[in-house]
Formats: sequence, structure tokens, C-alpha cells
Amino acid sequence: MSFIYRTRYVSTHTLPLLSLSQVVVGVVVESCGYSGGSGLGLSPSLKEQQQQQPRARLQRMESVPPVSRVAIFGGTHGDEMSGVCLVRHWLSDAGEVAAEISRPSFSSTPVMGNPRAVQHCTRYIDTDLNRCFTHEQLAMEVKEDTPYETLRAQEINRLFGPKGSDKAFDFIIDMHNTTSNMGNCLIVSNSADIVVLHMARYMQDICKSAISPVFLNEMAGVERCYASSVSKHGIGLELGPQPQGVARADVLIRMRKLVTTALDFLHLFNTGHEFPAGSLEVCRVTERIDYPRDSHGNLTAVIHPDLQDRDWEPLHPGKPVFLTLDGATVPYKGPSVTIPAFINEAAYYEKGLAFWATQREMLHFPALRVHGQASQAHI
Amino acid sequence: MSFIYRTRYVSTHTLPLLSLSQVVVGVVVESCGYSGGSGLGLSPSLKEQQQQQPRARLQRMESVPPVSRVAIFGGTHGDEMSGVCLVRHWLSDAGEVAAEISRPSFSSTPVMGNPRAVQHCTRYIDTDLNRCFTHEQLAMEVKEDTPYETLRAQEINRLFGPKGSDKAFDFIIDMHNTTSNMGNCLIVSNSADIVVLHMARYMQDICKSAISPVFLNEMAGVERCYASSVSKHGIGLELGPQPQGVARADVLIRMRKLVTTALDFLHLFNTGHEFPAGSLEVCRVTERIDYPRDSHGNLTAVIHPDLQDRDWEPLHPGKPVFLTLDGATVPYKGPSVTIPAFINEAAYYEKGLAFWATQREMLHFPALRVHGQASQAHI
Repeated sequence: MSFIYRTRYVSTHTLPLLSLSQVVVGVVVESCGYSGGSGLGLSPSLKEQQQQQPRARLQRMESVPPVSRVAIFGGTHGDEMSGVCLVRHWLSDAGEVAAEISRPSFSSTPVMGNPRAVQHCTRYIDTDLNRCFTHEQLAMEVKEDTPYETLRAQEINRLFGPKGSDKAFDFIIDMHNTTSNMGNCLIVSNSADIVVLHMARYMQDICKSAISPVFLNEMAGVERCYASSVSKHGIGLELGPQPQGVARADVLIRMRKLVTTALDFLHLFNTGHEFPAGSLEVCRVTERIDYPRDSHGNLTAVIHPDLQDRDWEPLHPGKPVFLTLDGATVPYKGPSVTIPAFINEAAYYEKGLAFWATQREMLHFPALRVHGQASQAHI
Repeated sequence: MSFIYRTRYVSTHTLPLLSLSQVVVGVVVESCGYSGGSGLGLSPSLKEQQQQQPRARLQRMESVPPVSRVAIFGGTHGDEMSGVCLVRHWLSDAGEVAAEISRPSFSSTPVMGNPRAVQHCTRYIDTDLNRCFTHEQLAMEVKEDTPYETLRAQEINRLFGPKGSDKAFDFIIDMHNTTSNMGNCLIVSNSADIVVLHMARYMQDICKSAISPVFLNEMAGVERCYASSVSKHGIGLELGPQPQGVARADVLIRMRKLVTTALDFLHLFNTGHEFPAGSLEVCRVTERIDYPRDSHGNLTAVIHPDLQDRDWEPLHPGKPVFLTLDGATVPYKGPSVTIPAFINEAAYYEKGLAFWATQREMLHFPALRVHGQASQAHI
């Protein structure tokens, strides 16, 4: 759909490992530390030469069809209470969609993602719903022992998809909570989706420092399996820290602000506003780090106090990551600095994940406007 | 077993409602605000006259049999991870009890309270185990549909009780976590248990400001139903804030300190140390406050940001307690100032409990020493 120009921020430790092929396909590796600076391991003239061609392509204007149907999911995980409370509230509004999520240029549909899990205030009944939206699972034959969440994913796909088709809803906003200190995190799963990138940048502009870095959960060769992948475009809102099964007012207020800001963006887009070319810093997942465990799979260590709650802060090799039950400190053994995310998320213990290692990357993308409408204004 | 002299701290609002009968049975009501001060609504001479008789009885020395068997429970709720991790660690120590919990004068037994719930990382399987230890449930006939936790409670009663008998274990320390900002809270369920009161005061002395007020969960006419009620003496350790299913290192470290301090106390007691007469401030539960709910029982409001995380801080009538989903503030409607506890605990949503209202009360108790041993030292 669009051309995205990437600048990847890595430490100087990894620079020699990267080949010129990454430049050829449009990825330029810069060594910048962790503040988005410009310190580059290449000479200025070579840098300019490499960037000239892809950057020229950013000058074009992308036009994309308007958004007509938007679904706002909560309770995709049944114990993440911000979304559960908000969807229930919007659905209870005398059968009409609450004014809070109504916009004149599109329909908004609040959806309780996993109603049975919500009823039991648990993440899921049989399996994690938010990993069920692969084409394979969506096409799976239903048997007696088919997990509830597979059935529900297929139902959601019928109602809001089919995934990857022209009939699919235009946008899904999926509300999540985490026990990690992730702040107001936006989750993007497709770095080629220019509408989502513009939305994220708009939300950063409106909410300023209240927005955490964007978490880019995109891995080569891995199909997107989230509920938000059923629609043409989708974004996840991941707010923390909040315990499972608890609704905190401060997190609820932040969630409302993010949802309404996302809807405002879509309405602006629909009504012809032009969004200029721009950039977005993201943290791209690179590696999953698990806890030390015994032969039974039980934890023999917990997140070290020096790392706890330090999501998004650079983690250097040799710095503490775990504290064993015997009192020993386990250092980070990665080859270079990483940006940890989802540190000590409750639901990830069973997934073998103590935190995600990520790398900063800068995405540059062209201007955006709605297809088929005259331009109204730059914002 | 012992005579406990109570001084109850209440606001002046409630003073006229209390009758002289409470003085006769040994309870003297003082109006002191919230800092344990001495402002009294009665004249000094009357006050002295009322307190003379009960206080005189505090001069005696209570002697109590030594403690020979101590059980340390974790995972009574399967998703409260401090206790789960510690019990698993102690049990994994090559079949021997870890030195950390060993003391020369008694045996220590780590116990996984609800192993099946631990396996599923959930609070319970069928029903809350820590409400199953009433004599009625412990004597209940086993049928096909008997809840798993009833069976487990009966098993625990066989292993560590029978409750109320001479054969019961001497002491159970039960480790819990809460999502509420309760700090390092000690839970006492029997204000007549002088060993537990002395232990709590000792732990406050050793841990100083790290200990929160003691939560006295004792209600007239209500049988104690906790796991810690199976043994002759028992105490609950309730540490927060920590999400369900998450093990935080800082909370784990605090839990270890409390457990080892409690064991140190028991060893000192066993070895003949005399503990002088003293006092302990407790917060006695007075009322359960539920969330505003709709006709289906679903929440229509959450804890107000002004109250969130303010466990143990005085809550005045008219101050905010809830924020509705419509944005309205619901004030506290109680008749007088209360001390809220367990604000926004995840597991209490289903119990119809947004927080406990409590009142401060001062318990005065006589000196303690072990029965049948010569005195060694005052501490």
C-alpha cells in the first residue's frame, strides 16, 4: 500500500554484523545511542547517498479509502478490566452507542471480545483468544473438542472479517491492560500500514509525553494472530501497570483518552484532512527472554529489583535482570543494549517470557489523505 | 487464655452512641483522632477510675506452652506468588527444610496450600480455600460434587489439626498477597491470642516502619474460617501491592523478612525470653463497602483516584470513594471517619467488597513467657 522508510537504531556493538543488503531494501542502520540522535558509523557523504533514493519516494501522497466501520474491542482478555468496563458501559447505553465513541463519518461498534472469559474474570477459557486469528485457525474444522476461543475467533471473523477480505471491518481498536509498567503503549503489528502509523503519530502529538514508545510486534515470516488483524487496519492499546481483575480509575481515564483520540483521528482522516509525511519511533521486538527455571519449568528466579518497572529504559549487557531464590543476581547476557518491554507481565509466565527485548527503529512514511475526497486541511 | 485490655479509637462522632456496658466488660472508648493520642471525652479522674481495674490485671505474667510444630503456608490462594515461590523454593531444597526457616527449638514445615490452584495459577479451583476452615465444612460428608477446596481443607485439617484440638500444629504462618496497597500487613483473627499479639508487636519492633497497621479480622459470632485457624495459633501475612500471578522481587524480599522475623520470635519465646506487657494498635473491621452495581451485578463505578492506593489513611464522610463510568463522584456516606483497607483488591470484586471499613483500636496485653521453662531474659 505504501512505502515505509526505516531507520534502525542499534548500538555500535551490532553495527559490523549488518550487511549492505539491508540498505538496498531500504533499511539504513544508524548508531545513535538511545535518543534518536544522528551519530552514524558511516561517512556523511555515504549516508546521504544511501538515503537519497528512498527518501525521495516519501514525497508522494498516499490516498486510502475512507473508514466506514470501526469496532472497539474490550475483554479480548477477560481479566483486563479497562476494556471490559468500557465496552460494558458503552453497550449498556440504552441500546445506542454512547456519544463518547460516536463520530459522524463512521459507525462505532463496541465488542466484548471474550464474553465467557469476562464472565469468569480470567484471561481465557481454553486458550489465548488473541493468538487465534491466523488463517489456519480461522479456517479450522469445528470438532467436539475445539477450544472455545477458536470458536469465538471464527465468530469474530464472520462478524468483523473475513480477515484479509474487502468485506472486513475497516478498523479494530483493541483495548488491553498489562501488569507491566508499560504506560500508554500502542501496539502496531504491521509497519507497512500507513493509516496506523499516522494514527500513532497523531496520538503522540495529541497526548504528548503521556504516550509510551510504540511497540512493533512484527516478525518476519510470522502471521499476525491478533484480533486487530481481522480488520483492514488495527491497533492495540496496552495500558499498565494494572493487575489482572482490577479496574483502576487512572488507567481507565487514560484508556478513554486514547480511544477517543484514535476515533478523532479517523474522523479527521475521513473528512479530508491531509496528514503530512512524517516519522515514528518504534521499538521492534527482537528476542524473547525467559525466566531461569528448574527441570519442572518452575521459576528459580524473579525479575531483579533493578529491572522491575523499568520498561522502555535501555538495558546494558551485564546489568541485573533476575534475582534467584537463593539471592544471586543474574546479569543480562545479550550482545548489546536492548530496550526491554512487558517486564513481568503476569500472563507471559506461561508463555516462557520474562520480557521482550526490542530495538529502537525510526519509520519514515509519506503523507496520507483519504481516497476520493478533496483535501480540506493540513493538521 | 489471657486478659486483653482494649482501648478503641473512634471519632468523637460515635462517642455518644457507646454505652457504659462496654466499660464494664473492659472496653474503654477514647476519642483520639487517628494517631493514638490521648484526647478523651471523659474527665481524667473518671478515666483513671475506669481503667484502674482492668489495667491492674495486666500486671500478671501469662505462661503458654512452647511451640514445637510450625507450618508455613504459601499458595493458599494459587495466584499469590510470593508464598508460592517461597514454599516451592523451601520444598525443593534437596528434601531438607531450608536453613532460612529452620530454628533449633521447633520444626518448620513449608506447605503448598492449594496445589491444584497453584498449578493453574488461579486463586482457587471451585471455591475460596481460605474460607473453608469452619467446623461445619471440615466435618462435611464427602460427595461426588464436593468442591476440591473443601476436600483440601479437610486434608489440611487432618495433617495440621484437627482444628481446636490438642493435636493441632502449634502455629501456622499463612503467606498472602493483595493487589491493594496494604504494605506489610499482619492479619490477626483472634484478639485473645496473646502469643500472636506479642509476635505482631515483636515484628513491629524489628521491622519498624516497614510494618503496616495490624488488620484485625474478628467479628462477633462469626467463626474463623482461615487456614491459620487450624493450628493453635496463627497469623496471616498480607503483602501488597502485587498483581495476581506476578512475583515481584521487592515483595518477595519483604515476605522473607516477615517470615524469618516471626520464626525468630517463636524461637525466642521457646527458649525462655520474657516478653513484657504491652500494647498493639490494630484496625478492626467494622463494615464491608461494595461497589455501585447495576441490576446484573456489574460495576457501574470504580474506586475513585483520590482513594486508590490510600489504604490505612483516614477516610472522612463526604470524601470521594467511587468514580462512575459516567464521570460522577460518589462520596463516602459512612457516619464517621474510617480507616479503609484492602481497597480495590482483585479477588474481592466477586465478594461484593470494594474495601473494608475499619476502626483503630488499641489492645493492651500482659507479659508472656513460655510455660515450664525458667526465664532467660527480657527483650
